[in-house]
Amino acid sequence: MEKIVIVGAGLVGSLQAIIMAKKGFKVEVFERRQDIRSANISAGRSINLALSNRGWKALELAGIKEEVEEEAIPMYARKIHDEKGDLTDQPYGLEGEAIFSVSRGGLNQLLIREADKFENVNFHFEMKCEDLDLETNELLFTDKDGKELKVKADRIIATDGAFSAVRARMQKTDRFNYQQMYLEHGYKELTIPPAEDGGFRIEKNFLHIWPRGSYMLIALPNADGSFTCTLFFPFEGKYSFESLKTKEDMLSFFKDVFPDAIEHMPTLETDYFENPTSSLVTVRCSPWNHEDKLIMMGDASHAIVPFYGQGMNSGFEDCSVFNELFEKHNGDWSKVIPEFSEKRKPDADAIADLALHNFIEMRDKVADPSFLLRKKIEKRMLEEHPNEWMPLYSQVTFSHIPYSQALAAGKKQAKIMDEIMCRADIEDKWDSQEIRDQIIALLKAQ
Amino acid sequence: MEKIVIVGAGLVGSLQAIIMAKKGFKVEVFERRQDIRSANISAGRSINLALSNRGWKALELAGIKEEVEEEAIPMYARKIHDEKGDLTDQPYGLEGEAIFSVSRGGLNQLLIREADKFENVNFHFEMKCEDLDLETNELLFTDKDGKELKVKADRIIATDGAFSAVRARMQKTDRFNYQQMYLEHGYKELTIPPAEDGGFRIEKNFLHIWPRGSYMLIALPNADGSFTCTLFFPFEGKYSFESLKTKEDMLSFFKDVFPDAIEHMPTLETDYFENPTSSLVTVRCSPWNHEDKLIMMGDASHAIVPFYGQGMNSGFEDCSVFNELFEKHNGDWSKVIPEFSEKRKPDADAIADLALHNFIEMRDKVADPSFLLRKKIEKRMLEEHPNEWMPLYSQVTFSHIPYSQALAAGKKQAKIMDEIMCRADIEDKWDSQEIRDQIIALLKAQ
Repeated sequence: MEKIVIVGAGLVGSLQAIIMAKKGFKVEVFERRQDIRSANISAGRSINLALSNRGWKALELAGIKEEVEEEAIPMYARKIHDEKGDLTDQPYGLEGEAIFSVSRGGLNQLLIREADKFENVNFHFEMKCEDLDLETNELLFTDKDGKELKVKADRIIATDGAFSAVRARMQKTDRFNYQQMYLEHGYKELTIPPAEDGGFRIEKNFLHIWPRGSYMLIALPNADGSFTCTLFFPFEGKYSFESLKTKEDMLSFFKDVFPDAIEHMPTLETDYFENPTSSLVTVRCSPWNHEDKLIMMGDASHAIVPFYGQGMNSGFEDCSVFNELFEKHNGDWSKVIPEFSEKRKPDADAIADLALHNFIEMRDKVADPSFLLRKKIEKRMLEEHPNEWMPLYSQVTFSHIPYSQALAAGKKQAKIMDEIMCRADIEDKWDSQEIRDQIIALLKAQ
Repeated sequence: MEKIVIVGAGLVGSLQAIIMAKKGFKVEVFERRQDIRSANISAGRSINLALSNRGWKALELAGIKEEVEEEAIPMYARKIHDEKGDLTDQPYGLEGEAIFSVSRGGLNQLLIREADKFENVNFHFEMKCEDLDLETNELLFTDKDGKELKVKADRIIATDGAFSAVRARMQKTDRFNYQQMYLEHGYKELTIPPAEDGGFRIEKNFLHIWPRGSYMLIALPNADGSFTCTLFFPFEGKYSFESLKTKEDMLSFFKDVFPDAIEHMPTLETDYFENPTSSLVTVRCSPWNHEDKLIMMGDASHAIVPFYGQGMNSGFEDCSVFNELFEKHNGDWSKVIPEFSEKRKPDADAIADLALHNFIEMRDKVADPSFLLRKKIEKRMLEEHPNEWMPLYSQVTFSHIPYSQALAAGKKQAKIMDEIMCRADIEDKWDSQEIRDQIIALLKAQ
């Protein structure tokens, strides 16, 4: 039985462990941190996760979809809060379509529990990957006392995240392309606690956004009635983490720009000053593999910013795509590993670009009535002409169309919608068959 | 007296040592390799260097311009060899303007010799930089026996090249942007030895190019009558390092495509099969500094491909720009170091882009009569209207205009020349005042 070493027991690593265990491999999972099942789930720096179709598909493959569904909270629309506290809804898709708020820590615990049920899976926590011999496929780990352990693997699957130790080793190999690019914005976790009766202080089944042009606040619901809020804010500049340093400045700023949020944030001061400010990185690299011996997946090979809600979903989709290739090639690693690297890389690049772009959409464009009208027209197209027009957001979120194809289709759609929005009568006629016929005509003319 | 540690005694590091020594600092230079003054200059993987105005300026600042001039061989034009062996000249600039072929090893030896003349400069060879504490500015080196040495510096200047250890440490700091990108082409050094009488087998004062579309061979003269040739060739594909594996295939390929070169290459077979195949990387990062304590220069912060002949020149210009800022701020490090990083980065990005683009020009466009005509028109513009039109190549090579400005001006010029080249009568009228007047008019209309 071949031995597979998985480096990193995060979301993707533990899901991949289940998938490989089901195929009968001996799976050894090494994780730098302590066992999240017995640890306090690290608070203060987890953006809540929005699970959507690509993620669900992989969870189904691993046989744990139902269990996750029990905890997940559907969000059917963006709830946009303007500066006066007025609200606008922008549905994500068709009636009943939703993305699902889940807790990263809770989901990770569940995945490890499920993987650990397999006799052929072993977890090793507090084991830091220090080095890797690419010739022999031997990994060097140190435990929490600094004791060294060498582990030889038939195959290595590296799922050790955006700051991957395995990738750092790969970076030293000749002709390894690599890029890490940080945003000039950071983020900070804040909280809206449950109401006194245990209910939700703001509407439950929405992803709340306070878009403010160059920055924004968002809130995602948790099962306990609270919301995890995230402030995305410049590191430097007039309004920035650097400039808001005193309690007075910070509170006065929040009162001005997030008036209907601050009333629900009794712990704001503590949260703001005690939670860390974290940075946002996009990582791209190639190749993702070393021969047929090592493959990198998830954030290790393609970390993205969180604004399309696709970080976890793309990582989970790695697992299902990998599984499909494994089935297609009857487990021939010499085909599976290089093909996965080559096939999946353009899709990872596409969702990285889309995620960067969506930051502008979320923090700025959703506050623009013309943008919301455009989205309404696109939604009507989807309802009336589902075979001809699936909006980009739906392709990314509610379909399994490869990200790179979605991006290409989205660019074509954007051109058409630019033209449509130039019509002088668009506000009157937006929901007319005439407009939809013109869109179809433009689509056919492309 | 402040202690400056320079990491890397390559071209930029040893030149910077001279400049800092002249200011009276205690300068400690640590180099991973052995002393190049006593070593065999590493053959088989040095692209010859083309020194031009930016490099000369820095050498003059260091007081060693005359000494370098003695060994440098002027190249006034590209000598383009077509597949039949027919030759075309394409001058680099005005009458008398040239770029200069120098040996990397020889120049490096000279720079270290000159730096070592200062009492306040010490060189430490075979010392590998293993780690760096950014809090304390303490470096950890190991010598060739693995013995550790800790060195604390007031300021660190990292000039340790494209695979910089200092940059690897910087890469782990939060919000450090980094990119390494390899070409799909590699290169291999080949040789045209001196003629039997000690003279040059092909014309001396030229940079010879055999442009062949997707690949090329070049040759630069050496003082001993030989030429250092470099084959730039795809790693993989129909004609590639991978495909040319047997002696027969290789020789038959060279006979077909480089017929007038192979007759001068008696050692081709040994050179081709024994010299290494090297890769070509572009490195970009930011910031280049850590507070006012550490600065990266040369390839360590901006390695580029060699096709504009500006790798060394841009590194040397780092030294003169740094010197200018140092004078401007009267040695106030808290201003010099951050300003250097910020000011110089856009210029490094510009020359990186220009160098990538020039590969296509050298291997492909110079074989196109229309491209050569365009260059002739631009040269006549420079001769007749020097205040209005300096071709991009001249700006980069023969001026001290910041690279980013040159790139911007070059883009405007390219648009104008595209329009001019569309004239049906361009082949007849190319050297007319009418054409030049139209160019001036287009320039003013921009």
